[in-house]
Parts: sequence; C-alpha cells; structure tokens
Amino acid sequence: GLAFRFVDPDASASAGAIAELIRAEYTSAEAMAAARDCDVVTFEFENVPVAAARELARNVMFLPPPEALEVAQDRLLEKTCFVELGIETPRFEAVASPEELDRALERIGTPAVLKARRQGYDGKGQSAIDAPARSRQAWERAGSSAAEHGFIVEQLVAFERELSIIAVRGRNGETRTYPLIENHHAGGILSFSVTPAPRLTAELQSVAADYAARLLARFDYVGVLTLELFDVGGRLLANEFAPRVHNSGHLTIEGAETSQFENHLRAILGFPLGSTRVPRPAGMLNLIGTMPERARLLEVDGAHLYDYGKAPRAGRKLGHVTLCRDTTDAVLHELESSKRALDE
Amino acid sequence: GLAFRFVDPDASASAGAIAELIRAEYTSAEAMAAARDCDVVTFEFENVPVAAARELARNVMFLPPPEALEVAQDRLLEKTCFVELGIETPRFEAVASPEELDRALERIGTPAVLKARRQGYDGKGQSAIDAPARSRQAWERAGSSAAEHGFIVEQLVAFERELSIIAVRGRNGETRTYPLIENHHAGGILSFSVTPAPRLTAELQSVAADYAARLLARFDYVGVLTLELFDVGGRLLANEFAPRVHNSGHLTIEGAETSQFENHLRAILGFPLGSTRVPRPAGMLNLIGTMPERARLLEVDGAHLYDYGKAPRAGRKLGHVTLCRDTTDAVLHELESSKRALDE
Repeated sequence: GLAFRFVDPDASASAGAIAELIRAEYTSAEAMAAARDCDVVTFEFENVPVAAARELARNVMFLPPPEALEVAQDRLLEKTCFVELGIETPRFEAVASPEELDRALERIGTPAVLKARRQGYDGKGQSAIDAPARSRQAWERAGSSAAEHGFIVEQLVAFERELSIIAVRGRNGETRTYPLIENHHAGGILSFSVTPAPRLTAELQSVAADYAARLLARFDYVGVLTLELFDVGGRLLANEFAPRVHNSGHLTIEGAETSQFENHLRAILGFPLGSTRVPRPAGMLNLIGTMPERARLLEVDGAHLYDYGKAPRAGRKLGHVTLCRDTTDAVLHELESSKRALDE
Repeated sequence: GLAFRFVDPDASASAGAIAELIRAEYTSAEAMAAARDCDVVTFEFENVPVAAARELARNVMFLPPPEALEVAQDRLLEKTCFVELGIETPRFEAVASPEELDRALERIGTPAVLKARRQGYDGKGQSAIDAPARSRQAWERAGSSAAEHGFIVEQLVAFERELSIIAVRGRNGETRTYPLIENHHAGGILSFSVTPAPRLTAELQSVAADYAARLLARFDYVGVLTLELFDVGGRLLANEFAPRVHNSGHLTIEGAETSQFENHLRAILGFPLGSTRVPRPAGMLNLIGTMPERARLLEVDGAHLYDYGKAPRAGRKLGHVTLCRDTTDAVLHELESSKRALDE
C-alpha cells in the first residue's frame, strides 16, 4: 500500500523493475524535484553525497539523518565515533604521509592495514602491512586511488569470525535489534550469512545490541542501521557501520518475522516497528559474478531466489538465495554445499 | 528477477502499482497483443471470459488450462465434475423452471439453495429455500439476475465449518498441497482464515489432498488451484473450486515456506515447486469496506499489512493482515480480537 519513486544515476537500476525510476545524479535538480512531493526520502546506498542529503533534508523529511551518512563515509570519523561512544574497535590512527604511517605502526604494531578514509568497500582501497619494513610498499599501493581524502592505519585483528547486527529505530526512539548474524567471506566479498550466529550467547547479543543502540542514539537515528563486528574470542570489536539495510540482513526476508526492509519503512514512516524475532534459523547465499541456472537454485528445499536483473561481471552481486532450517548447523551445511556446487 | 505485464479493464487495478498495466477488455485486440511476447500468460480472476483464454492458448503458453476456467465458471459443470471424479459434494440438480425446481426439491429436500449456474461469488446470486412452499419465492428472487444461464438447486448442508485446500501442480505433473485452512465468514464474505485448521487429522488432510489431486489431474492442470470444502462431522463435501490463488491462501505469504503466489509462478514457469510446509500456525484477516488506521494494525505483534490501494466501498476487500503464532489457538484468538476491535 505504499508508493515509491527511485532516483539512480544508472538507468538500469533494479528498482526500475517495480517502481518509477528517475535517472539522475543525486545532486541534480531532477533528484531534488523528484523528492519534493514525497512524504519521506531515504537511501539504501551509503555513497550518496552528503551535500545532496543535506540539501534534501532542508526541504523534505529525510531519514536516516545525513550526519550518519557523513560519519559512515569517512573511516576516521567512523572509528572516532566508536571510541567516543565507548564501542570497542581495533586500534587506529589517521596518517597523511609515509612518515606518519611509520610512526603509527610503532604504536599499533603489525600486522596492520592501511585504508583510504573514503570510498572503498568489499576490501577495495585497502592494503595490508605484514611488517614495519613493508610500510612504504603499502603506502604506494594504496596511495594513488584516494590520497586526496587521506588514510587511516589500523591494527589487523586476528578475529575468529565476522558478525553483524541489524538494528532499527523508530521516529519515537523505539529500538529493536535482530539476532546476531555470522558472515562468511570469499575474496573479500560477503559469500554467505547465517542467523542466529552459531554459539550465540545472551551476553554476546547484549553487547552487540548495546553498541548498536549507542550509535542509533548518537545520531537520533531513524531507520535500519547495520554494525559489523569482529569476534575475537568472545570480545566484540566494531569494524564499521552502514546507515542502511545490509546484504547480511537479506536473510531477514524469510528468516525474521519482519524483514529489515519492512522495518526500515515502518521506522521512517513513523509506524510501529515489527517483531525482529527469528522463529527458525535462516541463511543467505550471495550469487556473485555469474547467475546460476534458476531451476538448480530453486530445487534446494526451502530456497527462495532473488535475481537483481544485473548484467554479469566478475565480483558483482547479481542476486541471493535465502532459506530456513530447523538448526543453524543445517543452514550452514546447506549454504556450504550450495556454494561448493556453484563454485564447481 | 521476473518481469510482469498485467491486463485489466480497470485502469485503477492494484497491479499497476508494481508493474506495467494495460487497460483493456480481456477479449480485446490489445489484450491479445499484450500477451504475444510473454513467455507465459496466466490469470488470477476466474471470470476471465473462456473465449479470451482459448484464443490466448492458441497463440502463447496459457496456464492453467482454459478448460479448468470453463468448468469453474459454471456450477453445473463444476458439480458434475466433482461427481465424475468421485469427490463428495452436496446433492444437486440443474433446474430450468419453477416446476423443475419443485420436482428437484422432492428428491433433494429442504433446506436447499438455488444458485445461478454462472457468475456470483460471496453469496451473490443465491437464494435459500427453507421449505418446499417457499420455492416459488426463491425462484422469483433469483430469477431476474442470471436466468439466461440457468440454475442449480443444491442441498443446504449443515456444515460445521468451511475448509479450503490450496494445491499446486508443476508442468511435469509434480503436485504439492498446503495444510488445510479453516475459513470464517461474516455476511457471506470471508472474514478470517487460519492454518493448519484446528483439529486437523492426517486423514482429513489426506482426503482433501486426494480430492485436489483428482481435480489437478483431470485438467492436466499447471499452477495453483483451490478447493473449498464443507466439514460435516469429519466428512468433507466439495463446495467449489477456484482455478487460481485464493483469498484464504494469502496466509501462505508469511505462513508457508513458499507462498501460493511464488508456487503458482514456479509451476507455470516450469521451475521446481517450493516447500508447502507451514512451520508455524498462520492467520489472515480481511479488511473489508473501510481501511483501518495503519498504525493500529501494525502494532499487533507479528502483523503484516497488505493494502490493495482500492477505494473504500461496503463489502469490498481492501486489504488483509497476516500473522503467525506458536499455536493455532493463539492465531484464532488474535484474529478474533482484532476483528472485534475493527468492528467497534
């Protein structure tokens, strides 16, 4: 019962298949005009220019707040925000020259990773440093792409696994969190996710939910926010947050009583939030690079296929499959064997 | 990942909100042209003219088969089909005059109900006969509307409840059925449904599934079919079938592993069918006549709202709410109390 209008610089954006799509740059007059008669404007891509977000927020209800977008777009602001909020995060320092990098490495130690402050996802714009002697090499490898915005260097944590927590906050401040999700990567790209995360304890969930709640409160946030965490022997370190629905949260479509998408809409529209309960363990497998044969995916018991209708390209997320099982182990087993079958 | 094009004589049809909508009569040249470059054509409204269905079926893949539509549109063909397939149904006879009605009532007894052979749903075009002396009155009440197509008179069964079973058959003949649904009416219109039906036994499910399978096989059917049944002390009598997804099956959206809609598409596209398992009891409440305030509906724990975007009108189905609970009793309790709250 809701009507949508999408703005995207790419005329082939998937949203065009189900709603009005206006092809325009985010900062263009067309984008501003498209927003004018909307009840609320939101985004599901964190590289929307903050200037466009602020301009929109002056004219229409724009949620989540542009400040969350601004902080999420800059790794230095983001990590500083974690520290200010008492959210544990790997040690880090801003570095603007090879000399600063060397000095920072003395304090942080190696292994470390040099990251461009801005842009970059799925491991792009990042350069690992095994030993202090390799710092110049890392600087040069990383330097050209994003030097204008500067870098941070951070401790490369030997984490056991990556977890994510999806949280949602309504206009009235009501906050709900989904059970922690365990994420498995391949080649720096999210490959599959499962929820509730294996070996999930009440304490782990409570720490993650508390961290997410601090971020939501900090921005007077409205909508869905995702926090990525490293699990280091039961200690959670924040890696980054995304001010939007998240790839790892796609499993909420079938897995949770209310999907991350529905809850994002409920939040920004001022409706009561929906239950974030996960009645049965759920999983999601990304379809990357090439689209497998549909019938093969659909013959997996309980599988649901989401095909974004995008042109195949190496490393590109073209779709995903979700499924539920009676146990987390059974979900993981199915995801792993499906992934193996697709890789072959 | 599928692309849709809809044809409807009504330019305000709900489908227009999410896909291309061509406003045209079903039998028009525009409708035929719209179908030409589709991989498959289907329907979700059983009053599509059979002539249009047959014409389409000559030119494109058209599923389910037009014959199922033809039989479902005529109560005499439909009931005769039940009898031929060994599916129990209330006693009935075709009647073309008041005299034939009187003679039929001698065999069938009263109470009975006179029904137009064609058109009519939600109790329209029907006239109850309490006693033989009332037959002329019933004839006159029913007569004007649909006399051209004739009538049937059938035994008015004192049933305990109405059940429905949703079944789906793939292009390769694979057949699956959902658990029986219990339907509650108000003023002749479906008010709410719950699945699995309370006091559902393996035998009840097996009889219903067998009846549905006979119908599917009879038409070499592909897609979703719904069979409505009266439960008379554990004996099931077929009332009617619908060659389409069904209002009572809307609860499969959240309630079943694969919704009736997804399974209909899987079937007609030749994909493997999805699981029809219902992991948790599920319910559906129709929103009829006027649309309640959204926030009020959404604050019910686990509730999902479907608003068809239709103009309010007495007796019109404007949307529905689905929800799941841990027990069937809890679902029924929630539906009943929600309905009471809406009625007040």
